[in-house]
Amino acid sequence: MIKAAIFGASGYTGQELTRILSCHPEVQLVAVTSRRFAGQSVAEVFPALRDFTSLQYQNATPAEICRLCDVVFLALPHGISMDIAPEFFRAGKKVIDLSADYRLRDLKTYESWYGKHSSAKFIKNAVYGIPELYRAKIKKTKFIANPGCYPTSIILGLAPALKKKILDVSTIIADSASGVSGAGREPLTGSLFCEVDGGFKAYKVGKHRHLPEIEQELNALAGRKFAVSFTPHLLPVKRGILSTIYAQLKKDISLADLHSLYSAFYANEKFVRICPAGIYPNISSVCGSNYCDIGVAVDPRTNRVIIMAAIDNLIKGAAGQAVQNMNIMCGFKEDSGLAIPPLYP
Amino acid sequence: MIKAAIFGASGYTGQELTRILSCHPEVQLVAVTSRRFAGQSVAEVFPALRDFTSLQYQNATPAEICRLCDVVFLALPHGISMDIAPEFFRAGKKVIDLSADYRLRDLKTYESWYGKHSSAKFIKNAVYGIPELYRAKIKKTKFIANPGCYPTSIILGLAPALKKKILDVSTIIADSASGVSGAGREPLTGSLFCEVDGGFKAYKVGKHRHLPEIEQELNALAGRKFAVSFTPHLLPVKRGILSTIYAQLKKDISLADLHSLYSAFYANEKFVRICPAGIYPNISSVCGSNYCDIGVAVDPRTNRVIIMAAIDNLIKGAAGQAVQNMNIMCGFKEDSGLAIPPLYP
Amino acid sequence: MIKAAIFGASGYTGQELTRILSCHPEVQLVAVTSRRFAGQSVAEVFPALRDFTSLQYQNATPAEICRLCDVVFLALPHGISMDIAPEFFRAGKKVIDLSADYRLRDLKTYESWYGKHSSAKFIKNAVYGIPELYRAKIKKTKFIANPGCYPTSIILGLAPALKKKILDVSTIIADSASGVSGAGREPLTGSLFCEVDGGFKAYKVGKHRHLPEIEQELNALAGRKFAVSFTPHLLPVKRGILSTIYAQLKKDISLADLHSLYSAFYANEKFVRICPAGIYPNISSVCGSNYCDIGVAVDPRTNRVIIMAAIDNLIKGAAGQAVQNMNIMCGFKEDSGLAIPPLYP
Amino acid sequence: MIKAAIFGASGYTGQELTRILSCHPEVQLVAVTSRRFAGQSVAEVFPALRDFTSLQYQNATPAEICRLCDVVFLALPHGISMDIAPEFFRAGKKVIDLSADYRLRDLKTYESWYGKHSSAKFIKNAVYGIPELYRAKIKKTKFIANPGCYPTSIILGLAPALKKKILDVSTIIADSASGVSGAGREPLTGSLFCEVDGGFKAYKVGKHRHLPEIEQELNALAGRKFAVSFTPHLLPVKRGILSTIYAQLKKDISLADLHSLYSAFYANEKFVRICPAGIYPNISSVCGSNYCDIGVAVDPRTNRVIIMAAIDNLIKGAAGQAVQNMNIMCGFKEDSGLAIPPLYP
Repeated sequence: MIKAAIFGASGYTGQELTRILSCHPEVQLVAVTSRRFAGQSVAEVFPALRDFTSLQYQNATPAEICRLCDVVFLALPHGISMDIAPEFFRAGKKVIDLSADYRLRDLKTYESWYGKHSSAKFIKNAVYGIPELYRAKIKKTKFIANPGCYPTSIILGLAPALKKKILDVSTIIADSASGVSGAGREPLTGSLFCEVDGGFKAYKVGKHRHLPEIEQELNALAGRKFAVSFTPHLLPVKRGILSTIYAQLKKDISLADLHSLYSAFYANEKFVRICPAGIYPNISSVCGSNYCDIGVAVDPRTNRVIIMAAIDNLIKGAAGQAVQNMNIMCGFKEDSGLAIPPLYP
Repeated sequence: MIKAAIFGASGYTGQELTRILSCHPEVQLVAVTSRRFAGQSVAEVFPALRDFTSLQYQNATPAEICRLCDVVFLALPHGISMDIAPEFFRAGKKVIDLSADYRLRDLKTYESWYGKHSSAKFIKNAVYGIPELYRAKIKKTKFIANPGCYPTSIILGLAPALKKKILDVSTIIADSASGVSGAGREPLTGSLFCEVDGGFKAYKVGKHRHLPEIEQELNALAGRKFAVSFTPHLLPVKRGILSTIYAQLKKDISLADLHSLYSAFYANEKFVRICPAGIYPNISSVCGSNYCDIGVAVDPRTNRVIIMAAIDNLIKGAAGQAVQNMNIMCGFKEDSGLAIPPLYP
Repeated sequence: MIKAAIFGASGYTGQELTRILSCHPEVQLVAVTSRRFAGQSVAEVFPALRDFTSLQYQNATPAEICRLCDVVFLALPHGISMDIAPEFFRAGKKVIDLSADYRLRDLKTYESWYGKHSSAKFIKNAVYGIPELYRAKIKKTKFIANPGCYPTSIILGLAPALKKKILDVSTIIADSASGVSGAGREPLTGSLFCEVDGGFKAYKVGKHRHLPEIEQELNALAGRKFAVSFTPHLLPVKRGILSTIYAQLKKDISLADLHSLYSAFYANEKFVRICPAGIYPNISSVCGSNYCDIGVAVDPRTNRVIIMAAIDNLIKGAAGQAVQNMNIMCGFKEDSGLAIPPLYP
Repeated sequence: MIKAAIFGASGYTGQELTRILSCHPEVQLVAVTSRRFAGQSVAEVFPALRDFTSLQYQNATPAEICRLCDVVFLALPHGISMDIAPEFFRAGKKVIDLSADYRLRDLKTYESWYGKHSSAKFIKNAVYGIPELYRAKIKKTKFIANPGCYPTSIILGLAPALKKKILDVSTIIADSASGVSGAGREPLTGSLFCEVDGGFKAYKVGKHRHLPEIEQELNALAGRKFAVSFTPHLLPVKRGILSTIYAQLKKDISLADLHSLYSAFYANEKFVRICPAGIYPNISSVCGSNYCDIGVAVDPRTNRVIIMAAIDNLIKGAAGQAVQNMNIMCGFKEDSGLAIPPLYP
């Protein structure tokens, strides 16, 4: 039984961590912080969690939380994690940061997309936490930069094809759509029910902050430098990301072979499910779970592959993957606390 | 480890049973039947369940299923269970029938609402499966008539007040709203996305088949005969029932006393949560769980109570309650396989 | 062609007025005000309205707007209209106030529910603007207190029965549900997509500010004083209110007679449609229109009537009814600018 | 005043035609046919339309309808229009066919995607009805092949760029998403609320029947032959299509120049609105209207353009465009009956 704390626990990602960790057989959740809701119980803010935790949100300092826990999850906005994390590093705690602050290995890139970094020297210590690709490193680290939601879907979707070098990487286009919880629980006009329901639109076309993260990881997988197109869209659903990814093939490949390649690549992965050939993933079939469902298609008329990857943005795209990383870091079963089927319908 | 089978497993209730039972620590799910999908795997029909069960739907006879299992769940339409169940009774199996076929103790009432009964002699053996009210009987029976979804919410909502005899029972009105999954997975025009989304309407006003079931149980709780008004509405959500129940008080009661009465009544119940005074339940806070959340209000201007009860119609209103009943019948922990937090947001 | 202005035009009600008035054949929309969006064009804030108006929001004083228009719509929050309206009264303009500030004829009642009134002396001049009930007065006034959304549905739903005195008025219960646009466009956590979608809950049980307005009008219709129960619920839809209203009958009435009573009462009303007997209204069948659809049922087992009334809360519940009132005040065809079919599906 | 009839009027497209035509100032709607609902009034099947038409659906022959009308709209499934239309051709009536039966000028292509054609000799008479591109021909024809919904969005989205020859046409990818009404009103499992709500998925990847139609028209615009990738997705909304279209630029172009090109191309078009630079279209801002909103972006990092086009699939994607075509054929104002603002929110 390890002791875990969540810093910034009252957003949707923090709530999801609270939900998962309060049922985790190896974890005692000892503290949750929130400035806005300090003094209120989790059950007051999220009545769904009544009876799962009796914790109250506290407005605690990193030092105070440090004393209580073995592992800390930072579910804070970008730009704030960087100020909070160092205290935990210095205390030798395991840290899983769900913000973007330590994901980009190149400081200049970080600062051009996000602004000044206050603790850049720790960036090099972070392991980018996609277990399916970096499990060995995750086992040995104490510090995870937990991937973004869009990047998770795109990286898992492209990894087999990139490793196998079957794509013309200069032609990669990722057309993605996310549920509204990705925008967090801040009361923004654009996240209101009336603004979102019945709607669908692209946003931040070519300018979303997940772009450098996507390119960093895709470049690493391919072993060379290239740019990609990435267009996020806002879906009128609460949870879920679907990325539909296009790329030109370098040479012909049959659907059967592409499907085999993907099936083999993820054969031992608990949390990646390859759809049968001709079947494509639906976000509602992963909702509530830590799965990434992947479907593949070949269009012989244009010689393109179309890869579709679906995740629950709050789980495999955030809190679930964070717990998966914790499980690996701590030597628990990798699906401990995560062996939950999707909620369908 | 007991062996369980689901007869009629390809509807939403059957799918939900499949989902819960395939993760249940005390159960081995050995067979699922479906005429329509015979020969297809569960994962083909419900991709969400891929990796949770490798079962295929079979078009099996009751006799064939009987040989395989210790307990059978009948997730069949009304009028069909009555033909299937007797085979299992005769073989001495534990039977949990999720249809209405054995819920009404009065045969004439049954036949006036549902039509001819083909195995009426078994009705008297059935225990109406609301654990919070009939746990002792459930422990000793082999045959559960699992309650309807609307009735579950209304009965749990009214039980404390009726037992305490604080209501003028002739004034009870239950105004309920249900998600679309309550209508099943049959492809009906009225269940189409375009017909439901953005809409809200009452249906079968004063004529819904759950009415005699509601009255049977409320009358039993109050120890006298009376009629109630019950108006179901169709909500544009997948899961969830909220019943808002009105009744005149026989004498004054404060909100604090009413709240205490409810809290005390359900103090030892794992699956009933009483909202704090002034807080009312939301179906999205029980969705994905076996909880019934109850909120109470007193309107001193009209001397009425307003009781609100929220459940997930597929779980506490069907599959979850069925598993809860099985757990009690089999001597398992009552929340075995059901200790799942709601999925919020 | 009259000149109209909207004060407080950037909320959902103001936007709806803008939409209707910019297509109205007898109206020139000359000004729209908004503090928050001053300097931005309507099309920037509501891209749906591009090409329908070239107006910009301005942060203008009442005096400035007064000079421009013949009629002003005040789409302001409660408590603000009362400060703005007097300027227009003094200038002799036609005023249609969509807030609650002048709806309650009893000042003490107003102040106990809403707080201090700054221009109470004008209350007596206001005509409560339900055209189906007060058309003659509306024709002669220059000042309309435009009804609330919930009250509109409940008053229209009960008027025929109350006028005919067939109900035991002490038993009236109005169980209502509204779409989220009723909460306005303020960025509130409770109005976020993730908080609303998939949910359903009661709120302000017995305490909603529309209660005194409902009682004032129902009492007036019945010609006596009584209290009612009113429970609003939040629906996961953008637009629409359904009120399901219960009352005990004073003596037996058949469904056919009740249906005839309602049909006759509204026979000459353009904007009230009585559903055929046995058919109940759906909010999605009035959405986008100025209709109030009403369905009636009789429950002989309990001797209750159940009346269901559906409106689009932004149209018949606000902007549409306001324009209908303007049409009557100005001698236009009553459906001028409002003869729009609902948008279905 | 011309006399119009709708053949196959009880689907969503037929309902939308009924809605628009019953308010059209130049049209008398004289007949609506439906096998399934013959004998029922429109208001019984679509209560939203009560008071807009008193017509009943009839199961009439083409010959019977022919005698009644000047113009007929065929809102029939593919493969049925081809049997019905010839009767109207022979009678010299104006025909607007909303099926795919006469859209593809190449018979072999038609038959390879749709099956045998029973009246192929009429194909050459059909004018493909996108007014913004083929207005002159539409004016002179009596026979319109009304475009598909996806193709309308993609063709309007690409026309300016293709005419200007700025794209490497071999790189065109159209990633589209449609609301569920596009699947019609047939009771299919895949269109059920519970299957669609909360979901998002691609379907018929590279195999949708709109593909040859898209390629025919794009090729015509570019003046050369090429293949495109087209991936449709199913959105959990009732109405709306958004197409996000990618293509490589042949040479650099600034966003300002691309925006000017689009603005100029559609400068005189009533029903195409170009979003300001940096703003992207949302389906909810065209819903309920005949608009196509287009947004453009340039990604200098990859030298790609991203074009986004949003329509209401039932209006600009079907019934509205059909009426627009009728208006042109009949010499009415092009926006007659169509000058309706979108319904937002």
